[in-house]
Amino acid sequence: MMYNAAFAPEALARKEKIQTALRRLSADALLLADNANLYYTSSRVFCGYTYIPAEGDMLYFVRRPVGLTGDNVVYIRKPEQIPDELKNRGLALPATLLLEGDSLPFNEYNRLAAAFSPARILGEGTALIRGVRAVKTPYEIALIRQSAASHDTLYRRIPKLYTEGMTDQEFSIEIERCARQHGSLGIFRIFGRSMEIFMGSVLSGENADTPTPYDFAMGGAGLDDSLPIGCNGTTIRPGQTVMVDVNGNFTGYMTDLSRVYSLGEIPDLALHAHEVSLEIHRAVMLMARPGVAAADLYNKALEIARDRQVEDYFMGHRQKAGFVGHGVGIEINEQPVIAPRSRDVLEVGMVFALEPKFVIPGVGPVGVENTYLVTEEGVEKLTCCEESILPLE
Amino acid sequence: MMYNAAFAPEALARKEKIQTALRRLSADALLLADNANLYYTSSRVFCGYTYIPAEGDMLYFVRRPVGLTGDNVVYIRKPEQIPDELKNRGLALPATLLLEGDSLPFNEYNRLAAAFSPARILGEGTALIRGVRAVKTPYEIALIRQSAASHDTLYRRIPKLYTEGMTDQEFSIEIERCARQHGSLGIFRIFGRSMEIFMGSVLSGENADTPTPYDFAMGGAGLDDSLPIGCNGTTIRPGQTVMVDVNGNFTGYMTDLSRVYSLGEIPDLALHAHEVSLEIHRAVMLMARPGVAAADLYNKALEIARDRQVEDYFMGHRQKAGFVGHGVGIEINEQPVIAPRSRDVLEVGMVFALEPKFVIPGVGPVGVENTYLVTEEGVEKLTCCEESILPLE
Repeated sequence: MMYNAAFAPEALARKEKIQTALRRLSADALLLADNANLYYTSSRVFCGYTYIPAEGDMLYFVRRPVGLTGDNVVYIRKPEQIPDELKNRGLALPATLLLEGDSLPFNEYNRLAAAFSPARILGEGTALIRGVRAVKTPYEIALIRQSAASHDTLYRRIPKLYTEGMTDQEFSIEIERCARQHGSLGIFRIFGRSMEIFMGSVLSGENADTPTPYDFAMGGAGLDDSLPIGCNGTTIRPGQTVMVDVNGNFTGYMTDLSRVYSLGEIPDLALHAHEVSLEIHRAVMLMARPGVAAADLYNKALEIARDRQVEDYFMGHRQKAGFVGHGVGIEINEQPVIAPRSRDVLEVGMVFALEPKFVIPGVGPVGVENTYLVTEEGVEKLTCCEESILPLE
Repeated sequence: MMYNAAFAPEALARKEKIQTALRRLSADALLLADNANLYYTSSRVFCGYTYIPAEGDMLYFVRRPVGLTGDNVVYIRKPEQIPDELKNRGLALPATLLLEGDSLPFNEYNRLAAAFSPARILGEGTALIRGVRAVKTPYEIALIRQSAASHDTLYRRIPKLYTEGMTDQEFSIEIERCARQHGSLGIFRIFGRSMEIFMGSVLSGENADTPTPYDFAMGGAGLDDSLPIGCNGTTIRPGQTVMVDVNGNFTGYMTDLSRVYSLGEIPDLALHAHEVSLEIHRAVMLMARPGVAAADLYNKALEIARDRQVEDYFMGHRQKAGFVGHGVGIEINEQPVIAPRSRDVLEVGMVFALEPKFVIPGVGPVGVENTYLVTEEGVEKLTCCEESILPLE
């Protein structure tokens, strides 16, 4: 079967959310091809397409794997067969079809568009499905809670994984292994063709201040110029901090969580900035609720950083990230985006990571990152392990 | 600097290869945005674009990271600035511009096309650059040799990583850790929007016969339906084989290498199929040289499998892969493609993996995968660790 009985009502609920969005745009159908979206609509990654008409049943057009069954499964060799298969089932072809214009490559998009000719084809499919995916169902929230629990368990073990004289890379390798032993799937799904990272980042000392090409909150030189992000092989030294921001993909749904560890005494400025991060978390927890603009949360965070005189270090020092938080789910960078020009507004069921971080030159990164669920009343913190800077011994 | 002095002549050589290809298509310029291609043209991943005119200097238009210097580096905030920056430098705008039609998302492609209006825009940029990248320079071959050496060293350690009663997942985790300790960058770059995998695959017993949605040589259920590939958590049992096909990205340039291990006695059919794989390797090594069609290599492999009566198990059993080898380099699936309908022809400097593999029901996968370099005289094997089925004890 394409999915098990437990997913059947969920597939229906997700389909209805997509159909509501389709009707709002007066579009007749959405054709999805991106792995994250195939997974969202079917509970599995397959090679093929999910077709969602504005009215009626969702259909799965499958190229691989062999062996899937179900009334809604149609095997095809190539996408040009889809319109014929729709006709064979007595279904009207869409007059207006949405495709994933922000993830389908140009040539593939045009091939699909030609297959559905003369339909009007629009590239707003990505925006539609990302908008739908931003608001999680109870089914999804349960998977996110499960990831959060494993993520917390992993982080509680992290201080024990350090041994004296380790490099950031050696520390990272032990954390990665422990994550995998706790069930991490390893893979780090990210939206956007330029984004890539291995399992996350372990940043220590000066390396945290190295600008990266990627649009992550923090940088780091990485181990090689072919992947310039994260740990760079430097020894963790006394008087420095280490930030661990490692993969929480334990269920197909991610959580995002960062904590800071220190070796020996660290300067007051770093301790102060870490406290400011915690203050920002408290302020955002009080402020965030359905209807609040994500941009206002960003502005609040920046205002606190400014008031506490650590703006220079806020979200990086030599290079600054343009956001302080982001939605999480199947991908690590979903909506809402918590950034100054974001138009996103919080809704019940949204799940976002807040990561007010600071880079203190000569010391390293401080601040925590937690994942929050937007509820009727406000927000609930999903990642709950200790937030203070923990010593490595 | 964008790159160090050692890369300067290499950048020039790569630029000239691209320019030769551009002139063959009568195109005026190529604009690259894909990370693999930015790395190819600059020796680093950055956020931005490499612009290669058919004549003249290559330019790097950089959004991030801050701090890169050099005459050929131009900082921009958005791609719309590129044409103005070209004009500012007294350069003619291209009348015909190639973009990466197979990796740029539709909406982003159109944005770039609009920025260069009224130029004629063609989506053949991906095909062009992948064709160029298929033939490696001595500089690239040195990096591939370095990855091969680390990859071999890793594989020599693999039998020692097994302990009694392990699952495929536990074995995989120890191999991943060992790979990282030997310098693996972890990340597995793959071409194609639907392709994804963590660090590689460890396949044992029946799981090897589970069809996958991905276009890899072998399948496996994976640990979760959100990533249905590779190990699935089953205990490695006596009478079964385990195939390890794990990431050889130690330098930004990959090698590809698979070996098989066994627990206890395994049936003659599996031993026989493994010998057939080695026979295919020997036959291809004798046959492969510049000018030979990749399709002929595939046909030779299939013919041997058929003659030796193991065609039913060749390249999978319940589901079969459509190829027996592929180019490797910055990505794991470059050209040439060794498949029945491939039009690729071997050239000096191509590097490809050959992976004649068999899935024996009830036993597991057998066969080896090696990476070869095409030389003037034939091919040179780059991955040289023991090829026989090694016992796990």
